Amino acid sequence: MLTVNAFAATSADEPLVKTTIERRDLGPNDVLIDIAYAGICHSDIHTVRGEWGPIAYPQVVGHEIVGHVTEVGSAVTKHRVGDRVGVGCMVNSCGECVQCVAGKEQYCLKGNIQTYGGVDPADGTITQGGYSEAVVVNEDFVLRVAENLDIEKVAPLLCAGITTYSPLHRFHAGPGTQVAVVGMGGLGHMAVKIAVAMGADVTVLSQTTSKQDDSLRFGAKAHYATKDADTFRKLAGSFDLIINTVSAKINVGDYLGLLQAEGAMVNVGAPSEPLEVPAFALIAGGRTWAGSMIGGIAETQEMLDFCAEHGILPEIELISAEQINEAYERVLASDVRYRFVIDAKTFA
Amino acid sequence: MLTVNAFAATSADEPLVKTTIERRDLGPNDVLIDIAYAGICHSDIHTVRGEWGPIAYPQVVGHEIVGHVTEVGSAVTKHRVGDRVGVGCMVNSCGECVQCVAGKEQYCLKGNIQTYGGVDPADGTITQGGYSEAVVVNEDFVLRVAENLDIEKVAPLLCAGITTYSPLHRFHAGPGTQVAVVGMGGLGHMAVKIAVAMGADVTVLSQTTSKQDDSLRFGAKAHYATKDADTFRKLAGSFDLIINTVSAKINVGDYLGLLQAEGAMVNVGAPSEPLEVPAFALIAGGRTWAGSMIGGIAETQEMLDFCAEHGILPEIELISAEQINEAYERVLASDVRYRFVIDAKTFA
Repeated sequence: MLTVNAFAATSADEPLVKTTIERRDLGPNDVLIDIAYAGICHSDIHTVRGEWGPIAYPQVVGHEIVGHVTEVGSAVTKHRVGDRVGVGCMVNSCGECVQCVAGKEQYCLKGNIQTYGGVDPADGTITQGGYSEAVVVNEDFVLRVAENLDIEKVAPLLCAGITTYSPLHRFHAGPGTQVAVVGMGGLGHMAVKIAVAMGADVTVLSQTTSKQDDSLRFGAKAHYATKDADTFRKLAGSFDLIINTVSAKINVGDYLGLLQAEGAMVNVGAPSEPLEVPAFALIAGGRTWAGSMIGGIAETQEMLDFCAEHGILPEIELISAEQINEAYERVLASDVRYRFVIDAKTFA
Repeated sequence: MLTVNAFAATSADEPLVKTTIERRDLGPNDVLIDIAYAGICHSDIHTVRGEWGPIAYPQVVGHEIVGHVTEVGSAVTKHRVGDRVGVGCMVNSCGECVQCVAGKEQYCLKGNIQTYGGVDPADGTITQGGYSEAVVVNEDFVLRVAENLDIEKVAPLLCAGITTYSPLHRFHAGPGTQVAVVGMGGLGHMAVKIAVAMGADVTVLSQTTSKQDDSLRFGAKAHYATKDADTFRKLAGSFDLIINTVSAKINVGDYLGLLQAEGAMVNVGAPSEPLEVPAFALIAGGRTWAGSMIGGIAETQEMLDFCAEHGILPEIELISAEQINEAYERVLASDVRYRFVIDAKTFA
């Protein structure tokens, strides 16, 4: 086994601290990855604080990982030592169910194995995430990252990128389609950049106009403040697709009213309370309200290749390990433009 | 103008009574239809009782109409005297908006003109429905009805048929797909017959098992009682598509849990109160909750032709005009298997 430095949560209400964890010995299908950068996702915070249910401490989180292969198992065929690679929200799945066979491992009928907090089928331990120096992952869940992408910025593509790419792709964003992105945070700003690259006409719906300049810089055609009730009147029936990245409780009926007939709103963030929806808001225009959760492995590779082709990267603030706890507070205060990335050298 | 016998509501709380109404003179694009049969839809009851908003009395309702062409306007090309034809929920639309051009007149951006209770663009009067001896309709909103279908039973296809055909078609019901139909009433039993004819494996979810024999007779593979909480455990993750025909307030999250990953539930009935939906029930499996409202004119013709090809007709109880008020009470008590059809000769 390999002992590596990491940053871990030791309880729901204490700051993350430096520690060491063990990485399993390489199995025949495993890849050892020297982590270069790890992104901070809001899910990390929910998880370590026990907001999504009890967890076993200590827990290392982080599911936006980029680095280089330093060793491969005897049967590995997909990756070689020195390759630049990424790992996202999953590190395994059953591989046999109808969803896995269809390349939708995120919806594995037996439950996919999450990058942190899951039970690793290889050794029965709890999986530990990317806030660490190295990780061992089954080769099938390791993605190729093109060399032309600035490696410092790549990590957030592995969660924020695929989470927004997948519904944009599934619901046919492209030339001529009118796409709205609700919320301009880590997910939202990726949704804007990707939808623009797909050729869609993109409008940002944010609480205020404070990020309007950024929206336009990322390629959006317009930016509206949702605090202005007039926005909902003005834009009624305007969009083919709305990607809702906001986890707060919104008035779903108001947003459905912004859709054209047979348009779709897709939630990628989930508030903890149920949302109230007038069924007539769906029926009147034959509208759709859907959910989407990350993406499959093949689709994640497709997204990474798409981003490499179009030069799409998140806006990031690079931090050291010692700044993680402060960064968490800033994420909660929506005070980040637009994603924190930890330099993994600072875990040492 | 033509004076015809009809049955009309004169207030929100009095029984429908026999009366006469005027039908406009034939315009160049109009067709005069001698009505043979008219179906009773739950919407008729909501409308006459003012439950969907105030209306102008007297009002003749009925939007499931079948009969024969007895006269055509000078420019009519689509229908000839003697043709067997039907009229559904719409009698006009703007014809110019993106929805109309796409054949989705039901979602006309200016609002389609409903068969009753709408403002007729031809003369500014309030449209009067099918509980009458004859009707004048623009030829574009008149459907062809095949001679091999038993004319006594055809009328409900014009609303219950298209309302269920459209989402089954749009969401790809067919060989190998697992379809559940929630509610076994006028809409539900049509959904079962149509989905079976499309080749899908159909399961009925009804409050009790009282209609189980009918479900199987209509071609369903299984019938489950939703009053049995175990049903939701047993069938979790089973369906590609759920057609929800129930207008009562249901636990949407429970039903979404019956869908496979990326499955869709489509509501064709709308409860008056908002429904509470946990967003995570959509996100976890990439699921969809959609609405659907009748269908476009071309799609309605396609549905009629499909039903003629497959010999699909509703189960009906034939009544006379004098029985309409009693039939309304029985509809409200869910005491009809499965649709009332009025013999239009009895309006005389």
